[in-house]
Amino acid sequence: MPSGEDRLIGRFFRPLARDPGSFDLRDDAAAITPPAGHDLVLTTDAVIEGVHFFPDDPATDIARKALRANLSDLAAKGAAPLGFLLTLALPKSVDEEWVAAFADGLAADIDAYKCPLLGGDTDSTPGLLSVAISAFGSVPHGKMVRRAGAKAGDVIVVTGTLGDSALGLMLRQDPQLAARAKLTAEEEAYLQERYLLPRPRSILAGLLREHAHAAMDISDGLAGDAAKLAAASNVAMEINSTALPLSSAGRKLVAFDPALIETVCTGGDDYELLGAIPATNVEGFQRQAIESGVPVTVIGSVETGEGTAILDAKGKSLAFRQASFSHF
Amino acid sequence: MPSGEDRLIGRFFRPLARDPGSFDLRDDAAAITPPAGHDLVLTTDAVIEGVHFFPDDPATDIARKALRANLSDLAAKGAAPLGFLLTLALPKSVDEEWVAAFADGLAADIDAYKCPLLGGDTDSTPGLLSVAISAFGSVPHGKMVRRAGAKAGDVIVVTGTLGDSALGLMLRQDPQLAARAKLTAEEEAYLQERYLLPRPRSILAGLLREHAHAAMDISDGLAGDAAKLAAASNVAMEINSTALPLSSAGRKLVAFDPALIETVCTGGDDYELLGAIPATNVEGFQRQAIESGVPVTVIGSVETGEGTAILDAKGKSLAFRQASFSHF
Repeated sequence: MPSGEDRLIGRFFRPLARDPGSFDLRDDAAAITPPAGHDLVLTTDAVIEGVHFFPDDPATDIARKALRANLSDLAAKGAAPLGFLLTLALPKSVDEEWVAAFADGLAADIDAYKCPLLGGDTDSTPGLLSVAISAFGSVPHGKMVRRAGAKAGDVIVVTGTLGDSALGLMLRQDPQLAARAKLTAEEEAYLQERYLLPRPRSILAGLLREHAHAAMDISDGLAGDAAKLAAASNVAMEINSTALPLSSAGRKLVAFDPALIETVCTGGDDYELLGAIPATNVEGFQRQAIESGVPVTVIGSVETGEGTAILDAKGKSLAFRQASFSHF
Repeated sequence: MPSGEDRLIGRFFRPLARDPGSFDLRDDAAAITPPAGHDLVLTTDAVIEGVHFFPDDPATDIARKALRANLSDLAAKGAAPLGFLLTLALPKSVDEEWVAAFADGLAADIDAYKCPLLGGDTDSTPGLLSVAISAFGSVPHGKMVRRAGAKAGDVIVVTGTLGDSALGLMLRQDPQLAARAKLTAEEEAYLQERYLLPRPRSILAGLLREHAHAAMDISDGLAGDAAKLAAASNVAMEINSTALPLSSAGRKLVAFDPALIETVCTGGDDYELLGAIPATNVEGFQRQAIESGVPVTVIGSVETGEGTAILDAKGKSLAFRQASFSHF
């Protein structure tokens, strides 16, 4: 007689395990054969109730946020997804309807990003709901795009718009803010969705491998993440805050309260890409990215030296209370 | 200025990341080059405070239990460890001393099992402490030892002794039991340690690949796990309960209360190996395992048909309330 755990896996997760290496989730482990001449790229990211999502957020979105945070890392490294392992800690309060919606969310992104479920571990917890995912991708041998590698003279680019997720979180924490800033319902919904649903730039992985000296995804805020990239590359960076790409909703909020530029620069969960591109390649990179549907904006330059400065319109360096999101 | 999270990682976890593919934990992802002609074997297992360990268990042991549960899966699949990713959810109450001890425990097993830390994710949680690990190993292409593959005529073997962990947990939950059963202090300590510190049989990985038709690790109890192996292989199994290898402490407890044979057969966390070995190879397998320091016991046989029976001394099938440990 199968246990409750086996029934849960059989009903909701086995249909997602379509890669032959998952052995239908009927073994202790999965097996994959990485493409010959390729390296395996490995990353892990977890989301926890009350930290990375709200307890009443839809299960479909929680699943997708967890997977997409990992897909964003693979994209930033120039890697093509191979699959992922899922570790679920489920409180007793979670019912089958919740698990079904969670599996639906995963299924949609498994298809959209071609990243199959390979295996997992499901535990009941007396604590909070959490989802830990380890995702795997491949790159031609030695071609993982590193944080190290940016060179003086490179141009700094970012994808999409910055700060939307942190501003969306702020709107949820302060329900009156949208009205005070005169956001439309659409603008409010847009920012809140950006908090819950990252948009991994997987489509740019190959382009990054081809053009970028260095890249990373912005998950802990531009200021801190740019500082990490600069430190790993032993270079300095100068970023123009006036060049930062903002969504129209984000722009409206910053116009309402100019101090929110700090939220844009230091808030977490952007999941946009930060890249250092040789100046001679940047136009081609931008054009090809836009052809893929992803806007790319030049926001600064790499210099010799060390340190990262984000400059205001007068060329004065902005000072922030905390450079990046940190759990501790 | 590095964040608290970066300091924590730099101080306690960077020293553990000695594999060049971990990039000193200074990148978004790790990269490894699996040996040519090999498949990658992937597994994940989490441990949660109050579920898999007690809140006051030593941090060193919590770290080792988490890693060893994964190493046990790799061993059962015949895989040589390549490394692991670590996802930590730490409550605010955890201090640096705890993290230091946790890292010490990991360091010891990283060396002992040659399984380097490749990367990870560390979050602060308002909930319970949990440790999720994904571990990776390699096998020659197509050679992962499956649950499927056992054939009628095979002999069923297990490593080590069964039930120690579940009995050790029982001793902790019922502090008077050891005295009632007249266990010595050594016997009590032995069983309790077996609960907290699995002994992955990594040394047998190659031997399993060479000899076993099928194998798995016993993590949810012999009865349920044997049923899973039999079902995956489309065979029946007959196991003699009188043949089950018990430690002297385990034997003493079962003599004190014969009903505890159910705990031996259905308790979790054994982390011993269950294998189906062709009858012609079993002597060589046993001898070589013993030469590696791991006792192997024949406990039954594989038959045509379906279903798993655990027989008592009179050949009568034992009936259990629940075949295996399940979270749901």
